[in-house]
Amino acid sequence: MKRVATEKIGKLAVVRNVQDLRRRVAQWRHAGETVALVPTMGALHAGHLALVDRGRALCDRAVASIFVNPKQFAPSEDFTRYPRDEAGDAAKLWGARCDLLYAPDVAEIYPEGFATSVAVGALGEVLCGRFRPGHFTGVATVVAKLLLQAQADLACFGEKDYQQLQVIRRMVRDLDIPVRIEAVPTLREADGLALSSRNAYLSPQERLVAPALYRVLAELAQRLGSGEASVFALLEEGRAALSRAGFTKIDYVELVDAETLSPLERRDRPGRLVAAAWLGKTRLIDNLAIAATP
Amino acid sequence: MKRVATEKIGKLAVVRNVQDLRRRVAQWRHAGETVALVPTMGALHAGHLALVDRGRALCDRAVASIFVNPKQFAPSEDFTRYPRDEAGDAAKLWGARCDLLYAPDVAEIYPEGFATSVAVGALGEVLCGRFRPGHFTGVATVVAKLLLQAQADLACFGEKDYQQLQVIRRMVRDLDIPVRIEAVPTLREADGLALSSRNAYLSPQERLVAPALYRVLAELAQRLGSGEASVFALLEEGRAALSRAGFTKIDYVELVDAETLSPLERRDRPGRLVAAAWLGKTRLIDNLAIAATP
Repeated sequence: MKRVATEKIGKLAVVRNVQDLRRRVAQWRHAGETVALVPTMGALHAGHLALVDRGRALCDRAVASIFVNPKQFAPSEDFTRYPRDEAGDAAKLWGARCDLLYAPDVAEIYPEGFATSVAVGALGEVLCGRFRPGHFTGVATVVAKLLLQAQADLACFGEKDYQQLQVIRRMVRDLDIPVRIEAVPTLREADGLALSSRNAYLSPQERLVAPALYRVLAELAQRLGSGEASVFALLEEGRAALSRAGFTKIDYVELVDAETLSPLERRDRPGRLVAAAWLGKTRLIDNLAIAATP
Repeated sequence: MKRVATEKIGKLAVVRNVQDLRRRVAQWRHAGETVALVPTMGALHAGHLALVDRGRALCDRAVASIFVNPKQFAPSEDFTRYPRDEAGDAAKLWGARCDLLYAPDVAEIYPEGFATSVAVGALGEVLCGRFRPGHFTGVATVVAKLLLQAQADLACFGEKDYQQLQVIRRMVRDLDIPVRIEAVPTLREADGLALSSRNAYLSPQERLVAPALYRVLAELAQRLGSGEASVFALLEEGRAALSRAGFTKIDYVELVDAETLSPLERRDRPGRLVAAAWLGKTRLIDNLAIAATP
């Protein structure tokens, strides 16, 4: 078997193209080992490392990818200022017992003439899709490609990006991509704020307001359970509470079907309480599971 | 390894779902054998069997699929009347030493909730794409799925559907679908008519006119080589010649870049002469390679 080039960042082995990635994965497979993939955009925090942990718990090997995907950012969005720290990320991945980093550049993923896009219909057009046109087509396209490049047994995604998770699950099922998708619960700061690379954008003042997103959702979840008011009225109250707390713009606070993401009209199926709101120039999202009522 | 259900049509083994298909392919792989896939819509003729031959020549095993894909037909098109003859097709495949037929029904390929589509940009929007909106997105979606279901080493497609071939090549390259695409030259009747399942629609009178499509393209190809007139003027002459021969509508006669399918302005790259024209209710297509001029 051809030898794989052995670039390292600190102690972590790194590959930068699909041939090297596949050779490495094939060597493990050949030795009877299973492989987990953890696709990321870098700027890693404990939430990402929990994905690596889960991958390592379920498979013999874990591969993380870092690729800040231009196709999932609108021209007005934060692609250029999105935080990048490959050396720091590599050190964290090594600490989490990650076996390999796949860090392709843009020309490796989107060579000249690239023309294909993968869309998932309404699932990618509702909620965040309304405010970020094309975002989930960019996500689905790059994730399809990363999954097919790596040919891992399993791939881990965080529940923090819940709509992304459902988009990916749908795409994998629809196209029969041969991989198992593993969802990992959101990690939170002590005050409830969901871990996110974008939290680094928050000013000290905004950081004090940010945990209200989780707090409001958690309170809504409790009151939804008690049945004290209509869903419609509660969601309105939630939006008002976020504004009062200091959020500068509320994109949405909704209760949706946990699988289809369409508005949950009857509570006979698992639901998801989902929200997106702005603090100045930073957009935060969060979500909570809402069990079906018996 | 779990035993695969052993339905047969005549002597040919048939599977109808992805689990059985993958088990069968995995058994061959496990035994060190390579596998070719030949995706078809049935109504098989010698052109399809040439694809099976090529698959058998390059791999140890050949799997043919038959699936009349509703997503690649517009509502006005011939989905319901498209010829279907599973028993006849199975006999032909057996005769061509095909090892397995994969014949899923529509609910197996597009179960409830299916939402994903794969598009290839301009490649799918030019030429036939202008006249059949959504057609190549339907083709790319189902072919991506069939390739990922079968996990074959190689898949064979005919040059007769040249734009389809380029769409599939682009998609496979862009998404890094782990399969090699093999193109097989068009088979023709003695009078030059390209073999096509849709030739069965032709009346005896139309059948007499049909070979003009190839004849006109072959003449254009020769005159393009001689440099006697401008490309623009020659293509105009070609359209007029098809009308004179009895074609009732000319969708297009074009000279395009053999890879990108954009109009070939300079002859410094390989080109493809492509045409689509109607005889009554039947739409015929054909194409010829045009070498780059030195």
